[in-house]
Parts: sequence; C-alpha cells; structure tokens
Amino acid sequence: MSLSDAQLAEIEANREQTAATRRATVPALEELLYRALPVLDHGFVRVIDYMGDDAAVVQAARVSYGRGTRRVSEDAGLIRYLMRHRHSTPFEMCEIKYHVKLPIFVARQWIRHRTANVNEYSARYSILDREFYIPAPEHLAAQSVANRQGRGEVLEGAEAAEVLDLLRQDAARSHDHYVAMLNEGAGGEKIDPSRQGLARELARMNLTLNTYTQWYWKTDLHNLLHFLALRADQHAQYEIRAYAAPMLEILRAWVPATYAAFADYRLGAVNFSAAMLAVLRRMVAGEAVDQKGSFLSKREWAEMMSALGRDA
Amino acid sequence: MSLSDAQLAEIEANREQTAATRRATVPALEELLYRALPVLDHGFVRVIDYMGDDAAVVQAARVSYGRGTRRVSEDAGLIRYLMRHRHSTPFEMCEIKYHVKLPIFVARQWIRHRTANVNEYSARYSILDREFYIPAPEHLAAQSVANRQGRGEVLEGAEAAEVLDLLRQDAARSHDHYVAMLNEGAGGEKIDPSRQGLARELARMNLTLNTYTQWYWKTDLHNLLHFLALRADQHAQYEIRAYAAPMLEILRAWVPATYAAFADYRLGAVNFSAAMLAVLRRMVAGEAVDQKGSFLSKREWAEMMSALGRDA
Amino acid sequence: MSLSDAQLAEIEANREQTAATRRATVPALEELLYRALPVLDHGFVRVIDYMGDDAAVVQAARVSYGRGTRRVSEDAGLIRYLMRHRHSTPFEMCEIKYHVKLPIFVARQWIRHRTANVNEYSARYSILDREFYIPAPEHLAAQSVANRQGRGEVLEGAEAAEVLDLLRQDAARSHDHYVAMLNEGAGGEKIDPSRQGLARELARMNLTLNTYTQWYWKTDLHNLLHFLALRADQHAQYEIRAYAAPMLEILRAWVPATYAAFADYRLGAVNFSAAMLAVLRRMVAGEAVDQKGSFLSKREWAEMMSALGRDA
Amino acid sequence: MSLSDAQLAEIEANREQTAATRRATVPALEELLYRALPVLDHGFVRVIDYMGDDAAVVQAARVSYGRGTRRVSEDAGLIRYLMRHRHSTPFEMCEIKYHVKLPIFVARQWIRHRTANVNEYSARYSILDREFYIPAPEHLAAQSVANRQGRGEVLEGAEAAEVLDLLRQDAARSHDHYVAMLNEGAGGEKIDPSRQGLARELARMNLTLNTYTQWYWKTDLHNLLHFLALRADQHAQYEIRAYAAPMLEILRAWVPATYAAFADYRLGAVNFSAAMLAVLRRMVAGEAVDQKGSFLSKREWAEMMSALGRDA
Repeated sequence: MSLSDAQLAEIEANREQTAATRRATVPALEELLYRALPVLDHGFVRVIDYMGDDAAVVQAARVSYGRGTRRVSEDAGLIRYLMRHRHSTPFEMCEIKYHVKLPIFVARQWIRHRTANVNEYSARYSILDREFYIPAPEHLAAQSVANRQGRGEVLEGAEAAEVLDLLRQDAARSHDHYVAMLNEGAGGEKIDPSRQGLARELARMNLTLNTYTQWYWKTDLHNLLHFLALRADQHAQYEIRAYAAPMLEILRAWVPATYAAFADYRLGAVNFSAAMLAVLRRMVAGEAVDQKGSFLSKREWAEMMSALGRDA
Repeated sequence: MSLSDAQLAEIEANREQTAATRRATVPALEELLYRALPVLDHGFVRVIDYMGDDAAVVQAARVSYGRGTRRVSEDAGLIRYLMRHRHSTPFEMCEIKYHVKLPIFVARQWIRHRTANVNEYSARYSILDREFYIPAPEHLAAQSVANRQGRGEVLEGAEAAEVLDLLRQDAARSHDHYVAMLNEGAGGEKIDPSRQGLARELARMNLTLNTYTQWYWKTDLHNLLHFLALRADQHAQYEIRAYAAPMLEILRAWVPATYAAFADYRLGAVNFSAAMLAVLRRMVAGEAVDQKGSFLSKREWAEMMSALGRDA
Repeated sequence: MSLSDAQLAEIEANREQTAATRRATVPALEELLYRALPVLDHGFVRVIDYMGDDAAVVQAARVSYGRGTRRVSEDAGLIRYLMRHRHSTPFEMCEIKYHVKLPIFVARQWIRHRTANVNEYSARYSILDREFYIPAPEHLAAQSVANRQGRGEVLEGAEAAEVLDLLRQDAARSHDHYVAMLNEGAGGEKIDPSRQGLARELARMNLTLNTYTQWYWKTDLHNLLHFLALRADQHAQYEIRAYAAPMLEILRAWVPATYAAFADYRLGAVNFSAAMLAVLRRMVAGEAVDQKGSFLSKREWAEMMSALGRDA
Repeated sequence: MSLSDAQLAEIEANREQTAATRRATVPALEELLYRALPVLDHGFVRVIDYMGDDAAVVQAARVSYGRGTRRVSEDAGLIRYLMRHRHSTPFEMCEIKYHVKLPIFVARQWIRHRTANVNEYSARYSILDREFYIPAPEHLAAQSVANRQGRGEVLEGAEAAEVLDLLRQDAARSHDHYVAMLNEGAGGEKIDPSRQGLARELARMNLTLNTYTQWYWKTDLHNLLHFLALRADQHAQYEIRAYAAPMLEILRAWVPATYAAFADYRLGAVNFSAAMLAVLRRMVAGEAVDQKGSFLSKREWAEMMSALGRDA
C-alpha cells in the first residue's frame, strides 16, 4: 500500500472528527472507519460511510415505528429466517460505501456487479500514478490443465523470473511513455516546451491492465452479500478474492448476526439439484450408489461427493 | 395523522438516543430525524436514516482521501457544474431512508420508481388499520374537460356531499367486512368461535384503494431528485405531490447546495426542443413570431409561451 | 376470461400477419403468440413478443460471430453448466414481453420484481371495467393456524357462502359508485347532466383490490427465471402461482433446454446450509441422527427431512 | 475492421436464414441485421437481434389487444408527446442486441451504463487477438488548455510521429510478451515445451488499454436513447462517439418516428435553468441584457449565448 504522508494525515484528520448522531451506529465499524486495509501490493479497501445495522434489517422487516428490535436472540432468529427464505428486501435497507484502490483488470471484473454506485478516478481529467500490480511469487500460477479458466501449479525458477521481469518492465515502460506523451510535470508545466503534449484521454490507452485505479463504491447489504458470495468463492480469481477477504471482516464487524446467517446459508451452503436430491435420498436410505448408478455426469458426481466430504 | 401514544413514545425514545460517530453528519437533518411530518389526512413521511451530505458529493467526484472539500463556495460551484452537465454518479453517493404512510393508490404510483428499496407492511401477515384517505373538500375535483388525466373545477354542493358520503361509506363498509371475514379480534382470538376466518392474504382483496398502507423506502440522492422532479411537478396527481412537498423541505435541510442547484437546473428549468430553439433565436433577434409562423403545434406553442411568461 | 368479440378479432388479426425475419425464431412459441391463456376467473397471460432462444444463450456465452451453436447436446450441456454455476448474464440475452390481466392485489406482489419493464393501464386516463376476482370455492381458504402468512383448510357451508356474498357485493357496489361518481357514459357523455363528475384519478380510489387491471410486462430470461422460482413456489400465494403456471408452460415452449436445466437446478433443487451439510455427512456415513443430535432448530430439521423425503 | 473469412462466412450464413414470424418486424433493420458496421481501425457494431418497433411503443402506451396503432401521423404524434413529457416506460418495451468490438478503454466508459445486459469475451478463458487501436493522425489531439477533460489542437510533425510510434510499439511489445508468457500456440500446444505457461487470467494484465475486446450488449430503447444522448454529445470522447454515430443510423432505420422525436427533444434540445429563463424572458421582451446584467456566471452566459446562436 502506498499512501503518501499527506493522504495518511487526511485519513487521520477524518478519524478524529466525531459528532453526535441519532442514527443507528455500530462502534465496531466506527473503529475501522476511513482506515485503509491493505490488499495486494499497492491496493486497499477502506470504509467511508455506512447506514444501518442488524437491527435496521429487523426494523424494516417489521415496518416498525421504533427500532423494531426485541431480544438479541429473537432478532438473530428473524435474520436467519429472512436469509433462509431469501427475503432479500430487508437487507437492502443497509448501505455501505468504500474507497478501493485496485488494478484495472480487477476493476473490470468488479464493475460487472451493476447494482451499485461507482465514482472512478478519471484518467480523462487526471494522471494515474506509477503503480502496477506485480503478483507475489506464490501467486504466479501456470494455466490449469483441467480447467480453462483456472490456475495450475506455481511457476518456478527461470520461467517465474522471466515473467516477473516482463510484467515489471512492460508496465514501467508503458507508464514512462504515458508520462512522456503527456509532457506534463507535477506542477502542470510542460516538461519539453517544444511539445504540446497528448490529451490525457488518449495517452491513458498506453497503460497496461495491471495499473492501479481507484473508486468510491457503494452498495446495499443484499447486493454486497451477493458480491461476496461470488467473489469470496474459490472459483473467483485470486486477485479479486484478495479484496473480498477484508470485506468479509468488515461485514462481520458491521452486522454480526447477518454475517453469521450468511456464513451458514450461503458461504458454507450447497445447492443440490433435483437429480442430486434423488441420489441423496437413496444414499440416506442406506443404498450404496456409485457414479454410474447415480445417472449424474462425472463432473456433477464429483461435485456432489466433494460436498459430502467423500471420495468421488 | 393518527399515531398512537405508543408509537409517538417509540419515536421520542429513538430521538433521545444519540451516539458519537465519525461519519458525515448533518445537524439540520438530525433535528428532523424520526419525526412524522403529516401528509393528507392520515399519512406521514419521516426520515429513518441518511448517509452523506453535500460534501460527500464533492468527495466522490474528486475520489479523495479526506473529505475532499475546499471552500464552501468552491464546493457549491462543483455541485452546480455536476448538476448542469448531468453528472449523476456523485449524487448517487448519498442515501436516505424514509418511513411513509400513504393510501394504496398513491403507493401504486410511487412504486413505479424502481431504483429504490422498499419494505411494505404486509397484509398477508398482518391486519391493516381502519384508515382511509378522504379528500378535503378543496381537493374534490371534477374531471378536466381539456386534459384526459387532469382535474377541473372543485365539486360543490350536493354532488360533493354525495361523493364524500360514498367514499366514506364504501371504504368503511369494505373494512368492516374485511374484519368480519377475518374473524379475528385484537388479541388474535376468534370473534365468532363457530367460524374459521378467511386467510388474511384473501380478505385484503375486499379493501378499497384509499386504504392506508405504509413502507420503508430508501433511495440514493440522484434517484430521489428524479422522483421529486416528476412528483413535485404540477402534472403529478395532487395526492402524490402532497408527499413530495415535505420531502423537498427535508432535501433542503439535508443537502442545501444540492437543493439550490436542483431548484435552478431542474425544478425551475425548461427544456426547449430543437424546433422551439429555432423560434427562440428568431425572437431574440427581434423578429415577431406567431404560432403559425413558428411551425410548432398549438400545444407546443402554448407550452413555450407559458415558459417565456407570455400570452399564447 | 372476458375478452370482447372485438378484442378476440384484434388478436386473431395479429396472429394472421406474418413476415419474414432473419432473427432467431421459435416455432413452438410462434404458435402461442398473442393468444390469451386464461388465468383465474377473468385474467389472462399472453405473449406479445420475444427475442432469442436457447441458442442465443449459447451464442452470448461464446461471444460468437454466427449462431455460435454446435450439436444440440453440447449446447444443452453448456446451458446446464451456466445454470449450475449461476452464470446469469448469458440468460439475460433473451427477452420476452407479456400482456397480463390480473387483480390489483396480485399486481402489487408482482411489481416488487423491479428488473422488468411495465406499462399499466392507467385509471387516471381511462375507466376500469366492472370485473373482479372472486375465488373459486376450492380456493376460499381459512387463515393457517401454523403459519402467519399461509392458508389453512377450505371454508365451507354458511361461512363460505357469506364470504363469497360479501366479496361480490362489496366489489360490485364499489364499482357501481365509482361509475356514478364519474358520471360518464360509454360514449363519454354525462349520465346526469346536472353533475360534473369526479376526476378519474380520484374516483378510482373507491375500487376494491380484487378489481382487475392489466399491463404489458417485459423482462429478460434470467429475471424471468428468478420470478418463476419465487412465484411458482408453494410458499407463494395461490393467486400469483396461477399466473406462474402458464408462464412455465410458455417457458418450456420457448427455451426447452433452459427450462430443463431450470427444473433441475432451481425448481427441484434444495439449498443445504452449512449446518445441514454437516448433518448430511453424518447421515451418509451411516450415523443415525435425530433432531436433538443435529443441533438444527425444529423447523430446519423438519425442512431438511422433508427435502430428503423422510419423516421429521 | 479485421474479420476473418470464416467470420464473414458465418455472418453471411446467418443473413441467409430467414423464417416466418408473427412478431413486429422492421424491414429496414432486417436489411442491416448481423452486418458489421466498421468503427475506428479494427472495431465494429453489428445488430444481432431486436424486439419491437415504433408501433410497439404506441401499443404499450395504450395497453392494447392488437397492434394498438392508428394512422401513422397519430402514432408519431403520440410518440412526440411521450418524448416531450418524459414518459419513458413505453420506450422500454423495445429491445436491441448488438455485438461490438471496441478498445478496452472505450469499453470501460461504455460499461458505466448499468441498465443493460453484457457478455464480454473472457480473457480468463480465451486469448485476445493482436489488435490495438491506434488513432488516425487527425484524431491525435493535444490536451485542451481550456478544459481539463477536453482535446485541443491536433499534434503534428515530430511529436505526432513519436506518439504514434510509442503507441504502436508498446501495444505490440506488450502483446508479444503476453503470448510469450502464455506459451500457447494456435492449436493449444506449448510453444516452448520446457515452460508451463502463465495462467491466462494473469497474463492478460500485461496488455495495454487500447487492445480490442468484444461483447454482446443488449438494452431497451429508453436506455439506448439515454446512452446515445450522452455518447453522441460533443463532450463525449471521440472514440466512443465513433460508436454512437452508426448506432444513431441503426436507430433511424429501426424506429424512425422515435428517432425524429429524439432528435427534436433531446439531441437538438437545450435545457434552460431557472436563472437563464429569467434572462430569456427579459430578452424576448426586448431588453438588452449583457453577462453582468444577467447574474449568470461567465461560463453559463457563454453556454446560453451559444444555444441562442449569438456571440457571448
């Protein structure tokens, strides 16, 4: 993470300002507010603002005049019920806003989640910093042989070294040329007075996809859970899972009862198809079933055995 | 407005609880928080929660590390710029949540605004109160002769009296029969032990469309402005404009710079079509133009003259 | 269903017009096009237009230049894969548009699905017909004792008769008074020349919630599946399930491979929570588990046993 | 545009297949269907499918049983009325689907329009072609001095030559290294058998932002008009306006009455703020007003004079 001293000072200044509010407030999330949690080599996630808490979910479900909450255990029970039966609207009543710094190729996956609000740092107006994502050696994976979109073993030795060199050199060179084409110094003055300088909106096209960008991203709790269910999943690319991880920790601090229900009914849950269910009934009744007798495809059989903690 | 003493006590209890927060806080809106602002005969709007302020719009537009604000006049200037050029995403960074009590036929207009989150009081689970909207005499309008969806003069005398009687009687009778079909007392006990009682999800179909319902409604500032531009407009039905009015006052308390820009560029603004613009250029150049010479339809000519404060 | 002869003639006229197109075309759906499939006592669903077919899902998933399809079995396999792994965007590439006639209380449930386009018949402009939903005797259910939002046994004898009488009389009387307040004949002339007639936008508030309305409703295939998964479910109110049923048949005619995958992975599937999964692993390993030993709540245990086809 | 012979053949094969349909059909758009309209140096837009026509807008506004249309002039009048009064829902009843090939930095602007469906060619699964956008000399603009996000004069001479060289070389080198890191030949075989090859999802980060990607993009007519109003505007970056231009031509072929109303009320229209309107009234009344006397800012005065075709 590469925050300048001025940026860190701004963050600390924000953290020091407090005011009295009548709104629902979550001390555990206040403690994290504005702080940049590091992700990858130069990225971060920080919470800028939030609205609501576990009780706000309950309050909306009951359309109540006061906080609408009863005993903590009753509220948690209602939240579990809502999660189990996919009653999503009460979870939409909470909102959170993040400031995220992330490589452009990760931003392109992230933005597919359309039910969110985004303000991205504009390379039409401003100049992007010289910061690129370079994978740590343990994340420099080969193409998976089994899975067209997966990763295989970690690259090693000369191949790893060469890949890292190429990534570093190409990103650096592209950024150097970007700055040269812009022909603009830190104070806005021309570096070479004999040149005009290329428009920012054009020069940016020379940057590589591992260049860092940043944005404000705001979403409601229901859509956040959907985002995390997909992006914290083992099938998601490592580089976006690296963002989902601290966001799960933030979630736990913010809405602990919702987090617990989410962990049980989403993160740790498995959907059994009608065909799998038929097999399951036979197994539970004591029948020995193998893949052939299951009428499932090999892949689905393997997925089902994995969910049941058995060898395929 | 018909809040019970218990409901008023819950609201006051909520208002008395304050906590320290690091979040952006707006004292003028805190002052209004939770309070039910009366609308129509039994309805209300009350703010339950909010996120952000004018500075949060600026902060998102600048993707800044701190509050991102400079002098108040600079911030207001940026907000005016964003509003003028329809840069909507920074306004999406603020959020507000209301509790609204409203007649069902108003709720059906309101719900067409899809970019919002809603939790409505469920008549499948619960029993609706015996409260109906009956127009005040000055709002009991005849059908407009000129406009198929507008109102004409106010009804008077015997016709007005009869209409009010019918509205009152039909709503009351339908609700009485609703309760009778439910066969369920205040404590959940059967009123007539020899009867089963009709399912709530069925009995509700007997209610009239002026019965009051209530919901939690949450939206971002950009979509709120869009809602208010349409629903505070003179072409909107009076009964929904009655809700837009206090919501505009809440807006002014919450984000005064945004409100001012909105009043100038939306509420008080007029869109001139290409054809109108051609006429306007001729008029500004000193030419006397009449409807025939304008090549505009009579209706468009009248709209244009009205916008210019002239007789058609 | 109460279509006038003129309406039936319009529908037949539409069905008789055909044109040549280069677009993806589904003969089985063309056969159904425009036809009103009856629902409840006066309602219907009819398909007005559609875009795409099973192959369009495959084509979008492959971002191909031609139709993108290979052998039928390969395409079906890809569709199953997309459905199983919740890759929703290829299903968004198909679209369907319906004309639906439905009671207002059903419309209010339906409209909660926000990711769709709607044009409803406006009672601000026009006058609603004298048609109300009255449940068939076998659907006149008592309130469930076990479930606050469910139905119990069917009402019988005097109670059933009285309920039906009240529903019929209140709806009819409210509509009669609606017409009287409007004071407008079929040709637009005043019924009573001495009266002005109440504005349509006001008079409609006297109607009961079982009055029929109608709308055009358009959605993409992904959101349609989500709608059907919720509304064809046994927990949905009967009156909306009655619409989901013919829509499922339309779905099967339109995109048979998608329908088959949907039936397997959604309609007939069950989500097992992390806690249920732990119990399942013990059961499959041969352990005898009862509710107490499962650490599941009674309700969750019962749901799980039901999914496994066993006594709770 | 660089379509292979095989791709062109697939497109022609699609164009040759026709079928009979009962759906609304637009011969002028059928003529364009599937054809790739070239944009920039390697990009294109082609229509893959569509739903509805001008009459479908009218039909939805009237919620009719047949096509709902009357005389062409009446339909056009209704469409103008809907456009003028921002009744957007009838326009949502038409839908169009494109296949677009575009540089990644353009895709990143485009994707901000969230109310659309997208399937992008995945560089996690597949390998991107060696195609980059290099601006034509007349589009190689300097940074604007007046406007932080605009373009100034065209670069010339040595500076232009150097910029083009850098753009070409960096894009080509980055792609060459991308292929080398992948270590995968056209047939999937390893180029260098001693190396594993970097995972596709990682290697793509080395590509520059002017690399071409492609996607299927589907939207409704209302949201398309919003997209075109913003992206065909002179303030939009040239490279996205280059896509808006053929899309406007497609629009005109598809829904000519909607296009005409859109041209009058959106493309050629100007929004006058309340403050501008006050000035306008004075001018139309014959008063000579200058910037100082207008109480408008210099920038707003200049915008208003420009709209009126006068010197600022």
